[in-house]
Amino acid sequence: MLISKRIQNTKLSAIRKLTPFAKKTKAKGIKVYHMNIGQPDIETPNEYFEALKHYKTKVLGYENSEGIDELRESFSKFLEIHDIHYSPEEILITTGGSEGLLFSFLTICDEGDEIVVPEPYYSNYNTIANSCGVKLVPFETKIENGFHIENRESILKVITNKTRGILYSNPSNPTGVVYSLKELEMIAEVALEENLYIISDEVYRELVYDNIKYKSIFSIDKIHNHLILIDSLSKRYSVCGSRIGMFATKNEKLRNEVLKLCQARLSISSVEQYAATKLLKLPMSYIYDVRDMYQERRDAICNILKDIEGVSYYKPEGAFYLIVSLPVKNSEDFCKWLLTDFNINNETVMFAPADGFYFDNPQGNSQIRISYCISIENIKKAMHILKEGLKVYNSL
Amino acid sequence: MLISKRIQNTKLSAIRKLTPFAKKTKAKGIKVYHMNIGQPDIETPNEYFEALKHYKTKVLGYENSEGIDELRESFSKFLEIHDIHYSPEEILITTGGSEGLLFSFLTICDEGDEIVVPEPYYSNYNTIANSCGVKLVPFETKIENGFHIENRESILKVITNKTRGILYSNPSNPTGVVYSLKELEMIAEVALEENLYIISDEVYRELVYDNIKYKSIFSIDKIHNHLILIDSLSKRYSVCGSRIGMFATKNEKLRNEVLKLCQARLSISSVEQYAATKLLKLPMSYIYDVRDMYQERRDAICNILKDIEGVSYYKPEGAFYLIVSLPVKNSEDFCKWLLTDFNINNETVMFAPADGFYFDNPQGNSQIRISYCISIENIKKAMHILKEGLKVYNSL
Repeated sequence: MLISKRIQNTKLSAIRKLTPFAKKTKAKGIKVYHMNIGQPDIETPNEYFEALKHYKTKVLGYENSEGIDELRESFSKFLEIHDIHYSPEEILITTGGSEGLLFSFLTICDEGDEIVVPEPYYSNYNTIANSCGVKLVPFETKIENGFHIENRESILKVITNKTRGILYSNPSNPTGVVYSLKELEMIAEVALEENLYIISDEVYRELVYDNIKYKSIFSIDKIHNHLILIDSLSKRYSVCGSRIGMFATKNEKLRNEVLKLCQARLSISSVEQYAATKLLKLPMSYIYDVRDMYQERRDAICNILKDIEGVSYYKPEGAFYLIVSLPVKNSEDFCKWLLTDFNINNETVMFAPADGFYFDNPQGNSQIRISYCISIENIKKAMHILKEGLKVYNSL
Repeated sequence: MLISKRIQNTKLSAIRKLTPFAKKTKAKGIKVYHMNIGQPDIETPNEYFEALKHYKTKVLGYENSEGIDELRESFSKFLEIHDIHYSPEEILITTGGSEGLLFSFLTICDEGDEIVVPEPYYSNYNTIANSCGVKLVPFETKIENGFHIENRESILKVITNKTRGILYSNPSNPTGVVYSLKELEMIAEVALEENLYIISDEVYRELVYDNIKYKSIFSIDKIHNHLILIDSLSKRYSVCGSRIGMFATKNEKLRNEVLKLCQARLSISSVEQYAATKLLKLPMSYIYDVRDMYQERRDAICNILKDIEGVSYYKPEGAFYLIVSLPVKNSEDFCKWLLTDFNINNETVMFAPADGFYFDNPQGNSQIRISYCISIENIKKAMHILKEGLKVYNSL
């Protein structure tokens, strides 16, 4: 029985591939700190559960394929706070940010077409691209520059006649970089010159630290016809399990084409859309409190990392990840070893080896992605395990 | 800005394309009976809303990409009632039946590969296939045979070296045909001979009339490694807006490949999975009462159709659709006319023109698909409008 090439070329999730080892470790009674996955630990607002409680209708029918009007309006208003202006009609509700990405790839690319992306990138970009026969083509950014984009040429270098778009997350998963307006202008210029779409994945938009004023590429007017904005409620409100996101564009032709895909999957969970409407109306102070909590965690991590020998890192400006270079040859072997052979007082830590966030760049081999979705107390314990683990591992 | 060929080749939904006309008609104060869409009108069981009310967790995190264990177990038990045996591990939960179909196409087909399907077929099959660059290839079934499959040769005739699978819904949307064991054996033999997958879409499985004992192709043991079973709760429990379905196969290699796609979209709504678990535990008497209601409606329609001149039809054995051939040249024009130019006591009716359920077969031009998701009282009124409408239309 044949399996399609596109699926064979698709790898299992980089973030979840060490899970079987973690399971065995836990079965031995050892506690594992999960710094491998971007699963917020912050309590979901009670408004979500209240909305579920109050949802009632006679017949739970299909909603509009575009999403319910109330939610499109709420998203539109929410984005206005950030000076991003999409009318409700310009917004299509999607099953998480992931579906918005899938729909983008299917609509702008045929098999063999290419999307360029700063590397390291969110590993699921590659999975989604592969699954629809699209080639993700990375351009390099470096840990010593905090993964900022160097110049226009670094992007232009990888563009071919098959390139259809530039994709990035801002703030970035997995690096935590927040792009400056200057960097966004580089992207905008390249997109205009080469007639490319821009897919701006802004699911971490509100998690920006040190009083940096976040700028979306939306602020550059002239690229509006090129721009696809992807968003999701998952991280912002700790509702990863609700699967509500959106796809917005001012390009009407593009939107009408994406609508065909929306219609093919009929509609999205009615009650989740209803609950999402309530969340988007929460006061911004809720989100900013969450942001401050993550900033404290970031500071705690960086404060410890700076005293670990052989480790190089940078201070990320947003999201809740950072890439750390370790004094080991193969970070996957080390991460596995932490799970299978090392613990302090019956506790160990799980990280995501960074090679899954790179295409085939050797830079990734000695790096890990750290996700800081655990309490400061646990961050301190986990970082201590990392520090002591490295000492033991490198003396074996 | 380029749009992919695959999306350009994708049509807007056949079922929804006359909606703008219906909207205008309603704006004029005319009531429209919706016999165009398969949206059950039967009340959603209260157990669904009770489940929403009782759902509570501290952090609404991602669930397993495969689906929550409780739901996979409930599906497994539910299928046993029909002598279909899949262990929970062999079941992957999907966002409606649609996602299961999309994942099937992506996993077994590369761009340009083909899936054969009895024609007329559910129009979204074509949309989903097109969107991932797969070619849907129809084989003919005829209204005079109640859309049953004639013989093996009728299937073999359309198979090429690019064919990867045979897809059908049983009972069928849009014809209401329930395939006999003999027909399923034809499909099974062809799949074995030609080494093809079988995608059996059984979302209407319980809606089978006249005491016919439903047989799934699962009952043919030797094709288990070829078989993909698609299911959904939408029609069975009147929960179209919950978007819970499943993909099951005994083919472990295939399942592991589909798992990559599940991981790429992370997980499915947690609360919808929880509520679905409750629905699958409802007593079968609930489903059989629903079935009996639909059977009465089918009988009511057929009783009226037999007295309308020039109309040809057959008595469907399942689902809640039938294809009717009308004494008109172009059924889309007639359906539009019913909406824009005809009413009886300020009431009219909306049907789906059948050409959207055919590839390019002229048979479809004079046919409509009738969906009987409205009360018997309204069915009688709507059929009267059809009867009188035809008289007027044909004397214009």
